[in-house]
Amino acid sequence: MMTGTADFLNDFATMSTHGATPGGGVDRQAGTDADRSVRRWFHGWLEERGFTVDYDAIGNQIGRIELVPGAPYIVAGSHLDSQPLAGRFDGAYGVLAAGHAAAAVADAVRAGEAASVFNVAVVNWFNEEGSRFTPSMMGSSVHTGRLELADALAKAARDGATVAEELGAEGRAGSGAFPETAGYAELHVEQGRSMEERELQVGFVTATWGAKKFRVTVTGAQAHTGSTRMEDRQDALYGAARVIVAAREVADRAPYRALHSSVSELDLEPNSPVTLAREVVLNLDLRSPETSVLEDAEAWLRETVVRIEEEARVRVDLELTHSWGQLAYPEEGVALARKVAEERGLRGGEVLTVAGHDSTNMKDVVPTVMLFVPSVDGVSHNEAELTSDEDMLAGVDLLTGVLTRMVERDLKA
Amino acid sequence: MMTGTADFLNDFATMSTHGATPGGGVDRQAGTDADRSVRRWFHGWLEERGFTVDYDAIGNQIGRIELVPGAPYIVAGSHLDSQPLAGRFDGAYGVLAAGHAAAAVADAVRAGEAASVFNVAVVNWFNEEGSRFTPSMMGSSVHTGRLELADALAKAARDGATVAEELGAEGRAGSGAFPETAGYAELHVEQGRSMEERELQVGFVTATWGAKKFRVTVTGAQAHTGSTRMEDRQDALYGAARVIVAAREVADRAPYRALHSSVSELDLEPNSPVTLAREVVLNLDLRSPETSVLEDAEAWLRETVVRIEEEARVRVDLELTHSWGQLAYPEEGVALARKVAEERGLRGGEVLTVAGHDSTNMKDVVPTVMLFVPSVDGVSHNEAELTSDEDMLAGVDLLTGVLTRMVERDLKA
Repeated sequence: MMTGTADFLNDFATMSTHGATPGGGVDRQAGTDADRSVRRWFHGWLEERGFTVDYDAIGNQIGRIELVPGAPYIVAGSHLDSQPLAGRFDGAYGVLAAGHAAAAVADAVRAGEAASVFNVAVVNWFNEEGSRFTPSMMGSSVHTGRLELADALAKAARDGATVAEELGAEGRAGSGAFPETAGYAELHVEQGRSMEERELQVGFVTATWGAKKFRVTVTGAQAHTGSTRMEDRQDALYGAARVIVAAREVADRAPYRALHSSVSELDLEPNSPVTLAREVVLNLDLRSPETSVLEDAEAWLRETVVRIEEEARVRVDLELTHSWGQLAYPEEGVALARKVAEERGLRGGEVLTVAGHDSTNMKDVVPTVMLFVPSVDGVSHNEAELTSDEDMLAGVDLLTGVLTRMVERDLKA
Repeated sequence: MMTGTADFLNDFATMSTHGATPGGGVDRQAGTDADRSVRRWFHGWLEERGFTVDYDAIGNQIGRIELVPGAPYIVAGSHLDSQPLAGRFDGAYGVLAAGHAAAAVADAVRAGEAASVFNVAVVNWFNEEGSRFTPSMMGSSVHTGRLELADALAKAARDGATVAEELGAEGRAGSGAFPETAGYAELHVEQGRSMEERELQVGFVTATWGAKKFRVTVTGAQAHTGSTRMEDRQDALYGAARVIVAAREVADRAPYRALHSSVSELDLEPNSPVTLAREVVLNLDLRSPETSVLEDAEAWLRETVVRIEEEARVRVDLELTHSWGQLAYPEEGVALARKVAEERGLRGGEVLTVAGHDSTNMKDVVPTVMLFVPSVDGVSHNEAELTSDEDMLAGVDLLTGVLTRMVERDLKA
């Protein structure tokens, strides 16, 4: 029922030339030329295989095949955009896999080899990564009503360009409606090492880790870097450095491997060689499968920040911008994935996802199945990201089976 | 012999409207509209008072009055550019004081009240601050041969504009030659608190503090902020934060008030909310009156960085870009300033400068006098920078006296 494995691997190699980097990865931040390039390529790929391609107002790229006139769609997909200097697999693998799986399902239905109560569609969500335009998961957030379309279109990159501008010219925001959706499936690389360690070929995602995300503003006072006495300084960058060190310490203090913490985005003013920073704004993320671990971490950080304020003579504001506990994926989806994996002889197991995915949004509105394949050494958001050909093909096989079942009958029935 | 004190204070108020900020300061980074605006204003001010105004190839603005046909010039000046959100006094006070002093000297010579073997000129050095285009002291560095003109013109700001472009249109790079110079005088606010504590009205600068300046490159590896295990991270921003904390600690470990240290400029890649930084580049400055303190500090930092490399799993390169010990100003200049201050009944004393000035360059090529007036609370590179009217006028009085002596006879004679 699958399309040929060589076809998939060839297509994957071709797709990876769009925004390819010398280091073997891709750089296809949302709304850039490289992103537009891969979208054009995928548009053609879909049309060649009989999909009707359309774009909604936030630039989600949708290819659909109608098998049952007027019926809702089972949608499979992920995202073709990437982080800067990123790997080839994150998101893009899942989109191409969805294309191959959906085409195979349609072929099987048309050949009378599979039944169908639903139609089938593929989606490339706009701006999942959020590196150029925050927030991440923009396309699926607008689609599921978590983010206002107008707010999303108005978001600006550091270079001044807005989402509306980048989608305008040829980036393709369209007037197409997203198809009425009866179910959603997404396949992604794990971006962690738990599957590799357990020697799993495929993973059935049961839940996302919980998270607390903060915007931290450190306020000091500008002063001359040379002539200002040390005791007179209110150096916002020094205060920020103490916060970054504390963010690492809070993970070291947590139970073994129970907390991930990071600071990865930072802006300082005035960023001059001879003037101490008056303000630093940074992100601080905490992630854990355990809500209590997140709460303890936040409490410790808030205490620590008070000490930093005194010692560094700065103000530190910790603004909690996002917070969620462990969020479960539907049990029916996990059960379906396990059943298909068993039938196809794939070594599978339940996994948690630490990273967010478009399916995190979709699972709240339709029956959703989230599938993983392993990442070598857990490397991700890095040109060295890797998933073996064998594992990629196992994932496509699983997704094809899952999608076949999903078009055959309602997951909730 | 001075121009009226009301004139000076009125001119200072008018000058301070160029690039004025709501917080009571100025923002006139080199080559911006605000810098061009104050330069145009000062051009007119000079011409009204009989100066011939000219620009050299790096945009130094020079006003000259010929009193002795063909004789070399005594030049007084400082800079009109500022840091972002800076005070009104840093540099600009010295340029306007030089204008008033030079005009007064010329009037006195023409009235037969003073003798003259030299001519007199005023200079507004281009880009002393170096906040937008590094290095700082650009105009005086090119003039004194420390920096190649072509290199300076090619420097680019973060916004992409080059020095050549900004000086082109109307910023005024000219073809004028810098006048043959027999001596240089500069008056500046202290930007520290030592004069205020000693209740000095005027200061005679005897030397600059020594300094070691480093460019620090922290190299890690991009990774997903969420899914990457803590022990697998090579987070360049965490490594950089450890370096910033170490830069503070090295000052805490030094003898009381013997070392100033700072990190104030930092760039990280990719600066994304969900990808750990692969590289951070920052400046690290050490300043001390004692060479041994600087050497001890560098040695401790280099040891500490090795520990940071191991603990943060990053590479840290400390590249020493500038290094000097305590640099003396000419004794003749200090003696002259002391004598004039005594004659005029001004409370003066010797001071060191921690900050660099254009006179730091000029003292190496011509007899140079560097004068200070106090800064309230030592605040500088901040909109709250302040020097009292009384102290400003005392400084203009001193500079006028010093300049009179300098045009009357060779400092070295």
